[in-house]
Amino acid sequence: MSDIRIIEVKQSVFEDNGKDADRLRARLKGEGTFLLNLMSSPGSGKTTLLLALAKRLCGKIKVGVMEADIDSAVDAETMTAAGVDTIQIHTGGMCHLDADMTRQGLDTLGSERYDLVILENVGNLVCPAEFDTGSVKNMTILSVPEGHDKPLKYPLMYETCQLLVVNKVDVLPYFDFDCDKVVEYARMRNPDIRIVFASAKTEEGVDEVAEWILESVKEWTKG
Amino acid sequence: MSDIRIIEVKQSVFEDNGKDADRLRARLKGEGTFLLNLMSSPGSGKTTLLLALAKRLCGKIKVGVMEADIDSAVDAETMTAAGVDTIQIHTGGMCHLDADMTRQGLDTLGSERYDLVILENVGNLVCPAEFDTGSVKNMTILSVPEGHDKPLKYPLMYETCQLLVVNKVDVLPYFDFDCDKVVEYARMRNPDIRIVFASAKTEEGVDEVAEWILESVKEWTKG
Repeated sequence: MSDIRIIEVKQSVFEDNGKDADRLRARLKGEGTFLLNLMSSPGSGKTTLLLALAKRLCGKIKVGVMEADIDSAVDAETMTAAGVDTIQIHTGGMCHLDADMTRQGLDTLGSERYDLVILENVGNLVCPAEFDTGSVKNMTILSVPEGHDKPLKYPLMYETCQLLVVNKVDVLPYFDFDCDKVVEYARMRNPDIRIVFASAKTEEGVDEVAEWILESVKEWTKG
Repeated sequence: MSDIRIIEVKQSVFEDNGKDADRLRARLKGEGTFLLNLMSSPGSGKTTLLLALAKRLCGKIKVGVMEADIDSAVDAETMTAAGVDTIQIHTGGMCHLDADMTRQGLDTLGSERYDLVILENVGNLVCPAEFDTGSVKNMTILSVPEGHDKPLKYPLMYETCQLLVVNKVDVLPYFDFDCDKVVEYARMRNPDIRIVFASAKTEEGVDEVAEWILESVKEWTKG
């Protein structure tokens, strides 16, 4: 596990994150690389879903992963053990990544070598949604044990994402989770959000997420 | 539900949160009021645990609750329906509460009327741990579905809390959660942290949490 690349990113001294993000997207367009920003609460299953997705994507396109955390390299170790090109980003205590921090990660990973780079953002439903990372699309996970009321409490997360994966549907019998309500509340925040019910553990629904990603990558790289 | 008191708090223009927090604790000491700051990820069971605790505490001491969220009043409605004096704090998009925002909530609630005020902080494992709210003690919840690795990834949360409640133990059979590891990792961050395994739903372990709170309140108000 000693070969994990860990990078400590630093916050930009410049203030205009929106401009940084647009510049980064233009660079990624030129490289033919699609950047997907994956956000959720801690423990909703981001890494497990990434493992299930990697199995479906890695044979078809070149995939790189950037794991962002305050501390530890446990997620990068998990992905690397599964044979996925992964770096670990440490945020120096920061609760989110901005576009320049993301750029530092892409430089270390070597984004030009990949069709798709997935950024697993810091586990947090608030701050990551406030900062454009330069990603082409954003997706979020809401796991069944967290409850169906999250779109009411954390509106911006659902407004900024194109895909919501409702994860851990295998444990639906053990929780008071209302599938109709979560759709209603998420669409209240974002009428256009695509919603997939899935279980990263049993791999139910993962094909649909993989297809959405492949179509998104295709659209970005052909355009 | 129209009688929920909702307050929009504003960030302090002053910079010294540490001083604000010490000033607030001195005021609470004078009022004979204990402030408990409850933090966790979104959906780990803060409100459900509060309901189970309120049943045990409200007959013995006077309890007030402040629910903090970016948006909605769903938690305050739940607590109020259960007969607990509760106000809803809206943070104006902020991911945490600082001491002055907490003070605004205490002023609205009327803290001098209570032996114990519990602040349910914004669901977030990162930012709330960085800001002293003026609380006397901090507690955090880690729910079984989130996984036992959280103390590795979010060190400060465990360093700043005196009590960790490992919640949702009723669903242990359905998750790969290692109870020994979570104790090991939490103590790695904070050797003195008290750890209670509980289920707010089945109320297993809730008596122990209630007793810890009662003892803490007693110590604060007699001293």
